[in-house]
Amino acid sequence: MQHATKTKLIETGLEIMREKGFNNTGLSEVLSEAGVPKGSFYHFFKSKEDFGEQILEHYARANLAMTEATLTQAGVSPLQRMRAFFESAIDMCACNDYSGGCLIGNLTQELADQNPKMSGILERKWAQQRMLFQANLEEAQREGELSPALSPGDLADFLINAWQGAMMRMKLTHSDIPLRQFLAVTFTSLLR
Amino acid sequence: MQHATKTKLIETGLEIMREKGFNNTGLSEVLSEAGVPKGSFYHFFKSKEDFGEQILEHYARANLAMTEATLTQAGVSPLQRMRAFFESAIDMCACNDYSGGCLIGNLTQELADQNPKMSGILERKWAQQRMLFQANLEEAQREGELSPALSPGDLADFLINAWQGAMMRMKLTHSDIPLRQFLAVTFTSLLR
Repeated sequence: MQHATKTKLIETGLEIMREKGFNNTGLSEVLSEAGVPKGSFYHFFKSKEDFGEQILEHYARANLAMTEATLTQAGVSPLQRMRAFFESAIDMCACNDYSGGCLIGNLTQELADQNPKMSGILERKWAQQRMLFQANLEEAQREGELSPALSPGDLADFLINAWQGAMMRMKLTHSDIPLRQFLAVTFTSLLR
Repeated sequence: MQHATKTKLIETGLEIMREKGFNNTGLSEVLSEAGVPKGSFYHFFKSKEDFGEQILEHYARANLAMTEATLTQAGVSPLQRMRAFFESAIDMCACNDYSGGCLIGNLTQELADQNPKMSGILERKWAQQRMLFQANLEEAQREGELSPALSPGDLADFLINAWQGAMMRMKLTHSDIPLRQFLAVTFTSLLR
């Protein structure tokens, strides 16, 4: 029951924080939306900062698990797996009507110059994502699916940064066009 | 004199808004930083919203002028001009110690799901930038510098979105690494 209340707070906070950002998420809105009294909040979280960190950890864990599951799927080539990852991500964006975007990108843009502690957590999340991409690209090179002239590390960072840029533009246009352009350019012109 | 006060307010507001975002920029901080009394502010701006819009127009005008000047420079090939644009942008980021980022990207991330009027202005700014890039890429194709297999429109959007993603990551790492990776991947692997 206690666990259910905490999960409810984190999921409600995640939805609001993804749309409004960290600074503009009011605890009173989260509590009223979740139907949880203020006393319970401080039973689970030391502060709004602590709440934000736990929401980020929760989101990043699910995100990383999804990335890992897609990128290591058996019986499919490395670049096909990478394409499947982006296709799945586009499907998830469609479910959100191409709004909200990615909590990691949103908080990075908002807090990079503002909040050193959150920035440290965010840097680790980007680095974890990058390592999975890099391993996939190295495998693609070993299997001859990708030119050995490219640096898998640079390419992995380039791709996750470019994808976050496309997600940002998606929020603005409320359409999948930036994501489809990302797919088209990446898989017809870049990864070859 | 009046004009100087207005310019001072816009430039001060721009610095603060680029770092803290639109919602978290307090007018009292802008006024105290600029040394301007509140009454003067309302002489020049109807509201904080109006102030934000004028800051965005001011920033985007300078940004577009710089893009146009670099991308249309005589005596240099289209892709060399594009590379020069990104090199200049990196130099400007270095002057800001790789913090602050791009006001257009920052406000897009913050306001896309929040503020339809600002979003409309932001969409037009992205579209203007994209048109300059597209024209440059079309010229590169005519001159045989770029493969005709690529769609200049998709590629232009891909590049400006990817660049904004790299700027976001730059803010987090406080380094030029994401920008250098963008340059390396774009000009050795993508635009060919």
